[in-house]
Amino acid sequence: MHIRKTRLLTPGPTPLYPPALHAMMAADIHHRTQDFVKLYKATVNDLKEILVTSHDVIPLVASGTGAMEASVSNLFRRGDKVLVVSAGKFGERWVQIVKAYGLDPIVLKAEYGQAVPASEVTAKLSEPGLRGVFLQASETSTGAAHDVETIGRAVAQTDAILVVDAITGLGTMPLDIEGWGLDVVIGGSQKAFMIPPGLAFLSISPKAWRHAETCDLPHFYFDLKKEAQNAREGQSSWTPSTALLLSLNAALLYVKSIGMERLVENAQLLAKATHAAVARLGLKLFAPDAPGAAVTAVCAPDGMDSGVIVREFRDRFGSIIANGQGSMKGKIFRIAHLGYFDFGDLFSVIAELELILLANGLPVTLGSGVAAAQQVYAEAAIPAGARAGRA
Amino acid sequence: MHIRKTRLLTPGPTPLYPPALHAMMAADIHHRTQDFVKLYKATVNDLKEILVTSHDVIPLVASGTGAMEASVSNLFRRGDKVLVVSAGKFGERWVQIVKAYGLDPIVLKAEYGQAVPASEVTAKLSEPGLRGVFLQASETSTGAAHDVETIGRAVAQTDAILVVDAITGLGTMPLDIEGWGLDVVIGGSQKAFMIPPGLAFLSISPKAWRHAETCDLPHFYFDLKKEAQNAREGQSSWTPSTALLLSLNAALLYVKSIGMERLVENAQLLAKATHAAVARLGLKLFAPDAPGAAVTAVCAPDGMDSGVIVREFRDRFGSIIANGQGSMKGKIFRIAHLGYFDFGDLFSVIAELELILLANGLPVTLGSGVAAAQQVYAEAAIPAGARAGRA
Repeated sequence: MHIRKTRLLTPGPTPLYPPALHAMMAADIHHRTQDFVKLYKATVNDLKEILVTSHDVIPLVASGTGAMEASVSNLFRRGDKVLVVSAGKFGERWVQIVKAYGLDPIVLKAEYGQAVPASEVTAKLSEPGLRGVFLQASETSTGAAHDVETIGRAVAQTDAILVVDAITGLGTMPLDIEGWGLDVVIGGSQKAFMIPPGLAFLSISPKAWRHAETCDLPHFYFDLKKEAQNAREGQSSWTPSTALLLSLNAALLYVKSIGMERLVENAQLLAKATHAAVARLGLKLFAPDAPGAAVTAVCAPDGMDSGVIVREFRDRFGSIIANGQGSMKGKIFRIAHLGYFDFGDLFSVIAELELILLANGLPVTLGSGVAAAQQVYAEAAIPAGARAGRA
Repeated sequence: MHIRKTRLLTPGPTPLYPPALHAMMAADIHHRTQDFVKLYKATVNDLKEILVTSHDVIPLVASGTGAMEASVSNLFRRGDKVLVVSAGKFGERWVQIVKAYGLDPIVLKAEYGQAVPASEVTAKLSEPGLRGVFLQASETSTGAAHDVETIGRAVAQTDAILVVDAITGLGTMPLDIEGWGLDVVIGGSQKAFMIPPGLAFLSISPKAWRHAETCDLPHFYFDLKKEAQNAREGQSSWTPSTALLLSLNAALLYVKSIGMERLVENAQLLAKATHAAVARLGLKLFAPDAPGAAVTAVCAPDGMDSGVIVREFRDRFGSIIANGQGSMKGKIFRIAHLGYFDFGDLFSVIAELELILLANGLPVTLGSGVAAAQQVYAEAAIPAGARAGRA
């Protein structure tokens, strides 16, 4: 009966920044030309500017998992003792990768929906011979965020390097790479960078490069030393993803124009508004104690499968919302905030959620969740004096 | 502080259907090839299918005004007595065009915000020697709609032809071209057809073609006979807008897939929801007696310039909303429904409007307008039995 626009509202891929989408149309360039060298250098320099680091930043034609693997296969040795901080499906992925390369992980696990407290991590750092610590800045599967600063500053005092999966952390929380001692920081194109999947990147500290010198693990496609050397000269080792680099270049211009801090503030404000709306609707956050701003995981109402909510978002409204992953499937749904999201998106999502609850026989006051989100906007962006008539 | 997506929400240009936007990328074709002939024939046939007519349908590289002019310069004679039904800025444009060509108009005028009653039009049809009647199906400047059916059926009984500017009427109201006797029906690409501006088209009845035989007005670029003859062979007289034809072709596939009736229903339902929201917020419709479904014109609150509302939509939220035109500027703002609009768009627009009213010190219960719009959705799309908890 009515038009339903397909709206990509997941925590990756995220909504595309239109000029970055259109920039892909210029991909009829060859990668062994001066035009490409200029593009590649500019893109890498913009990434460094946005990450506020002088560390090497290396793009890879891969999704985030490829960059995670590269950090293991290029910086460690068979049998290395490492600490894996695991608070969800992506923490578990670290465990799988380090085991695949024969490392020896100590796993610090939190229940789904919780973060691993920084104190638990720092207490383990005295473990003799510890060579590395792996964690998620933001655990996308649960919405929980880790205390990267405390962990980073503590790991910096040891011989271990800290490898941060910041794939959904970048652009949703402050990350002071050099100030906090973050040796490897991994990002992905399809997150706060507002472009399609297919590109990942890592920053590598001098301390991490020293680890690389003794690496004995096999790797070929993901050769960080070779890529870093080439990147300094404006080249990629293998055929690069020209369309996505053009897209990233356009997106980074936008991120620079608004400022990385504002991008983070935007996600945090939308997360705050989402928390307010969810509470007003009587629903519960899945990660109430350590909620990140990349994504808000919401528990389905008692007795209801979250898959029904996800399906009705799609079927009734065309909105693509994430279900839970693994054992969380059916129990939670996830509303994303990272990257190219604004209050217009959020107002629709909450209004749609209210109607979905209504359609499933749940008690809901239409407009009430939207009003809670609007109030967060009003407190942030409307001077108190003007809000005389506020509900 | 926050991201503001630019959302094009005016009654033309309207939001673009993404696959139609992307289809323009295939424009590296030549127009004197079999590939183009195939495209042109398919596009004209799809237009005829959607308009449900066997009349000639002629695309023009022009905006809607060009097609309006073509209907005058190709079908009339110097000094012809015609009736112009004028209810706003576009009715006034008919008067300008017919005068520019030396026709002799009788102007039936309604106050802005009103439609000209069909009875007033039919009463004038006995005027001796009347050769044509011009009207807007939907007067975009005020949001008012005319009773095209009654007027069409009456004009069909006379020697005059009826020329309908349906630029925002198509896709927002039923228009039975052959059943109601609509001799010329004019459409534009950037309206319910969901693509950028630059293409217009007209349908021409056999009765209108008979008028063309005695035409003595100068025309060259807009030569409807020549274009119709060429269109039957899959060609355009002059260089066509290949990118926009590719785009229109993609949009028409979509319109056919949902059905023209559903597109109309969609606009009508969104208009109904907008009326409910506006009423709940204590605002007044500008055309309450004959509201069309293409666009809803809303009166600014007393003492407030509608330009402030339009500016705050843009500055606070990135939403591009139309102000009034001419003497209505500053008095009304217009919320569009024609083409690629959905409830997600509307929920955001209403939530944003509430915040703008709040920011300007007006009494508003946040979420209340959204709730009124949600209720219209719920009544249309949620079975009553499920709505136990409804507010």
